[in-house]
Amino acid sequence: MSLDGTYDDANIFARILRREIPSARVFEDEHVLAFMDAFPQVKGHTLVIPKHAKARNLLEIEPEPLQHLILGVQRVTRAVRAALKPDGIVVTQFNGQSAGQTIYHLHFHILPRWDGVAVGRHGQGQADPAELAALAEQIAAQIT
Amino acid sequence: MSLDGTYDDANIFARILRREIPSARVFEDEHVLAFMDAFPQVKGHTLVIPKHAKARNLLEIEPEPLQHLILGVQRVTRAVRAALKPDGIVVTQFNGQSAGQTIYHLHFHILPRWDGVAVGRHGQGQADPAELAALAEQIAAQIT
Repeated sequence: MSLDGTYDDANIFARILRREIPSARVFEDEHVLAFMDAFPQVKGHTLVIPKHAKARNLLEIEPEPLQHLILGVQRVTRAVRAALKPDGIVVTQFNGQSAGQTIYHLHFHILPRWDGVAVGRHGQGQADPAELAALAEQIAAQIT
Repeated sequence: MSLDGTYDDANIFARILRREIPSARVFEDEHVLAFMDAFPQVKGHTLVIPKHAKARNLLEIEPEPLQHLILGVQRVTRAVRAALKPDGIVVTQFNGQSAGQTIYHLHFHILPRWDGVAVGRHGQGQADPAELAALAEQIAAQIT
């Protein structure tokens, strides 16, 4: 899908928000939801999305929900660090299929990095739900 | 450098902010500066940094400058899109050497993507300053 288009209420993250699809939830407030990526590229791969903005990507979101979103991203990134003690953390956001976007509801990826551990390609395989739930719990315990 | 450490006022981006080092400036307001990456991974590789926050990474910045920063990132991302008409755009931010960070002043990368054009590794080579200046001018003309 290109950068042009219309927000589709049936996208997977919209369905996760409506609890039509299960997810390993990490954190939720009035503005954002964080949950484990079901197809992680690395252990601890976490996503943060806006709850009320019908924005497919960074280009489309209004200023206020964007400002709440980035605070949520920071908060969850800090918790990922505290919980998993990675050597580094990549925060990334894809706009359009050509940039690697697969779900058209704006989201930030939080990818812990450990020296010597490569990041896999997205969608290489679905994670064990029990393992994701355990990671979500570990990270959630570090939200401050 | 790990995620722990102290902000160093002599880092390259701090020096760019103080105009001790030249850069191809795209946009500047009270809160943020955008300029072309001197070692671009792809044509149009643009950086956005906070002007007043002494933060090495996303973990360290205070809420208010972070909120201004992300609005600046969005604004410049839109301008990159309008100027260069890429197929997609990656927005990314590295925390710590293990995540690919090389300059320890918080920054967001804006990487236009074109189908069939690979993104190079960072630091493969310095760009021609005249070429960067021309790109900066093209993008600056699309700031709204």
